[in-house]
Amino acid sequence: MNEFQQRSAELNDLLCVMNILTWDARTQMPGGGSAARAQQLTTLSALARERLTDPAFEAAADEIVGDGEQTDQNTRAARQALEAIRAMQCVPEALTRELTLLKSEAQDAWATAKANNDFAAFAPALTRMVELNRQLAGALGSTDHPYDALLNTYEPGLTVKTLLPLFERLRAHHLPLLRAIRAKPEPRTDFLTRFYPADAQKTFSLAAARRFGYDTDRGRLDESAHPFEISFTRADVRITTRFQEHFLPGALFGTLHETGHALYEQGVDPSLSRTVLTSDLLGLYAVGGASYGTHESQSRLWENRIGRSAAYWKLHYPELQAAFPEPLADVDEQTFVRAVNRVTPSLIRVEADELTYDLHIMLRVELEMRLIGGELEVKDLPAAWNARIREDLGLEVPDDAHGVLQDIHWSAGMFGSFPTYTIGNVMASQFYAAARRAIPELAGQLERGEYAPLHGWLADNIYRHGRTYTPHELLVRTTGEGLNPQPYLEYLTEKYTGLYDLESPVAAQKENA
Amino acid sequence: MNEFQQRSAELNDLLCVMNILTWDARTQMPGGGSAARAQQLTTLSALARERLTDPAFEAAADEIVGDGEQTDQNTRAARQALEAIRAMQCVPEALTRELTLLKSEAQDAWATAKANNDFAAFAPALTRMVELNRQLAGALGSTDHPYDALLNTYEPGLTVKTLLPLFERLRAHHLPLLRAIRAKPEPRTDFLTRFYPADAQKTFSLAAARRFGYDTDRGRLDESAHPFEISFTRADVRITTRFQEHFLPGALFGTLHETGHALYEQGVDPSLSRTVLTSDLLGLYAVGGASYGTHESQSRLWENRIGRSAAYWKLHYPELQAAFPEPLADVDEQTFVRAVNRVTPSLIRVEADELTYDLHIMLRVELEMRLIGGELEVKDLPAAWNARIREDLGLEVPDDAHGVLQDIHWSAGMFGSFPTYTIGNVMASQFYAAARRAIPELAGQLERGEYAPLHGWLADNIYRHGRTYTPHELLVRTTGEGLNPQPYLEYLTEKYTGLYDLESPVAAQKENA
Repeated sequence: MNEFQQRSAELNDLLCVMNILTWDARTQMPGGGSAARAQQLTTLSALARERLTDPAFEAAADEIVGDGEQTDQNTRAARQALEAIRAMQCVPEALTRELTLLKSEAQDAWATAKANNDFAAFAPALTRMVELNRQLAGALGSTDHPYDALLNTYEPGLTVKTLLPLFERLRAHHLPLLRAIRAKPEPRTDFLTRFYPADAQKTFSLAAARRFGYDTDRGRLDESAHPFEISFTRADVRITTRFQEHFLPGALFGTLHETGHALYEQGVDPSLSRTVLTSDLLGLYAVGGASYGTHESQSRLWENRIGRSAAYWKLHYPELQAAFPEPLADVDEQTFVRAVNRVTPSLIRVEADELTYDLHIMLRVELEMRLIGGELEVKDLPAAWNARIREDLGLEVPDDAHGVLQDIHWSAGMFGSFPTYTIGNVMASQFYAAARRAIPELAGQLERGEYAPLHGWLADNIYRHGRTYTPHELLVRTTGEGLNPQPYLEYLTEKYTGLYDLESPVAAQKENA
Repeated sequence: MNEFQQRSAELNDLLCVMNILTWDARTQMPGGGSAARAQQLTTLSALARERLTDPAFEAAADEIVGDGEQTDQNTRAARQALEAIRAMQCVPEALTRELTLLKSEAQDAWATAKANNDFAAFAPALTRMVELNRQLAGALGSTDHPYDALLNTYEPGLTVKTLLPLFERLRAHHLPLLRAIRAKPEPRTDFLTRFYPADAQKTFSLAAARRFGYDTDRGRLDESAHPFEISFTRADVRITTRFQEHFLPGALFGTLHETGHALYEQGVDPSLSRTVLTSDLLGLYAVGGASYGTHESQSRLWENRIGRSAAYWKLHYPELQAAFPEPLADVDEQTFVRAVNRVTPSLIRVEADELTYDLHIMLRVELEMRLIGGELEVKDLPAAWNARIREDLGLEVPDDAHGVLQDIHWSAGMFGSFPTYTIGNVMASQFYAAARRAIPELAGQLERGEYAPLHGWLADNIYRHGRTYTPHELLVRTTGEGLNPQPYLEYLTEKYTGLYDLESPVAAQKENA
């Protein structure tokens, strides 16, 4: 190992260790341990920052970049390191410190405000958070919209200029489709809230994860209040889920979602372990995926494209019925598939269906863009939120806990992260379409439950590269083009046309135009 | 916080984090994660060493020691830091590096050798390990026996000069007592290997731990192949046990043993968290106990003095019977107490009873002392081992797996740690005798299951001090004298005289003299 590799390896070790501490805190730690754990994470994070910005690391990276004999992989790693170092150099230490403190304060204020349904109690912290994020955006710099600088920390290369027209196309597609669906009878869903024992849910979920290729010799499934996936190198990639005994889809699809994330991390090439190319250096987070959106594309692909498909349940519904004979006794496969794909406007993002989910995201993104751009004040946020929910979903927000206070993101300072959920949906369909072109017999394989060829193609084309390429480079290499919503829109239209027995898509769109 | 405190806090954080990683590796980690985990631990350990030996830390400690205005606690912390720094400075980096590598190699070689019952396959690694530990002892320095230097890393201040006469007294007591016991009929133990469901064992064990005062808001009980206790500050102190469904005493007393360790760690004064006084700096290990022996005194005290006593089972045996009605149906309380206190010579240390355990320890200590002193060669070790087992316990060692290869310690380079088990037994009785003097109504309290007064006295006199005092200082403060085996010998004699219906102790000793 040269010095750059040695220092990168130690830095990645530190980031992986932080992930281990986070996993433990969220799944195992006794309540009394939280203050000490926060201090341990603060110390590690300061150490990681110290080592990232150590002039010796910069010099070592510079040397690699200047050395024409290096492999492409090494050069890319060194370039990414320099980019992160220089971004960190742009941000005043005082701002970093204040942001860290404020994140913890603001999350507390948010949790209390949400519990008491009292936006005013959160407003001062949020106002300061917006202000600091505006400063952060200014320090990081951008040529166009200040929001671009924040966006870039989650989705390298993505800009408002790309995002807005994309959103416009999605809106123009989603709203008419939603109206057409709403005109049809509601599918039956009563049985989803019957009693499903947690043990049987866990057994079924773990088996499903393994079927997709999740390697439990390098992973494990635990329970946590909020499901997540986290990795400490490709050799140890853990997922969690939440088993609700009176709501089957939660764990069922939640596990497939986290499995998608986990397949990505487990599929990173071993040569990228302990390198910059499995480190989000700016976020000080060990992760093998190219970006938040790319990562989300894989969770969505496995959860929605595969896990909610008719073909999947044609094969696996008998197993589900065998696991839960009583609550599913009077439910046939088609009824089940319709139920878990039901589209219905709702107030809460994390409970939203595939179609309305994007509407929830676009609402948040457009509001946070205006906050960062200085065009919207925090005091006007609830009204703006509620108006948009009314307009898009036809719902009245009864209180801020079911509205503007529902998500933790803004209190955690995560401005710029919301778009990645929708970007993930779009990319999932692009990748899936490319896989279908590359594997002509894919549909038949999936009908037979042969997931290995699809998994192998995704691993070869996406997973193994880790963070070597930007999301755009990865898309171009894999699909021949940049971000393009067309395959996603076609997928949604086709899916819901079938499920809801809509008129032909074109007719449906015309009718509602 | 001054600079010394700040640096101490970060150093303790790193050591706590290493403990979290170790706990996870031994209880949760999937098999595939072990290589990455070893690298993460190596990186953290190197970082901790780097920060310990940072000249700025030494200077900060020096400043505290030179400042007459400091509290006793701060001055002691700074002195301990300087001692550790200077010891580290004495050890050549090349030796540390070679020892680290050899530990991992030698443990592999030992595991294979043990599995194949092939001492010759382990001998080269062990020979090198002895040689490096001789070098380490030389580097650390000692005025008398080189073994003292190693001993000091586990039990500060203990020397061969103190240890040998102590062992002589124990031998002179234990061997005649063992002979007297062997002349009596064996108690019934057949029922201990009946079927005891693991779930019920776990419930009973956890309740027993909480009865003693183990705070599960700052701890948890898990399973692992080898039971242990580990702490990440006093706010998070975890224990593990191993539930064998056909051997009840394993988990029953194993949990009480680890609970004793945990009470110590949970009882450290909050002001010592994140300081040198909860850091074994030389061992790079976060721990609140004054030494390995002091720690062991508390596990032994709670496991043996309380947990195996007649008074304990008089109160709790009905609960045990209720938890395991079938296997204990034909067993009365007295039969149970005799069974779990049976004395019988055996080949394996970890399975030994309270009395013969010390004989196992003394055998190991005397052999390793001779190895480090250069008076015994590795090739002659098995024969020396087997001869001593024959002499002390009257048993023939059938193979090295049941003899010299049974313990991991030497392959892990832990020369000097074995004595602390017996030191723990001796100190346990000294502390217990002092508690009895201080709490006249102790016996009655224990009969009623009131453990809080004893726990409180131990916390006040021992636990809260963390590593502030040396074991000797702690003994003198608490009991008025240094290491003294008399209370321990009296306890054993009295206990077994009653259990085995021996003649009066003096008569018994005479008869066998």
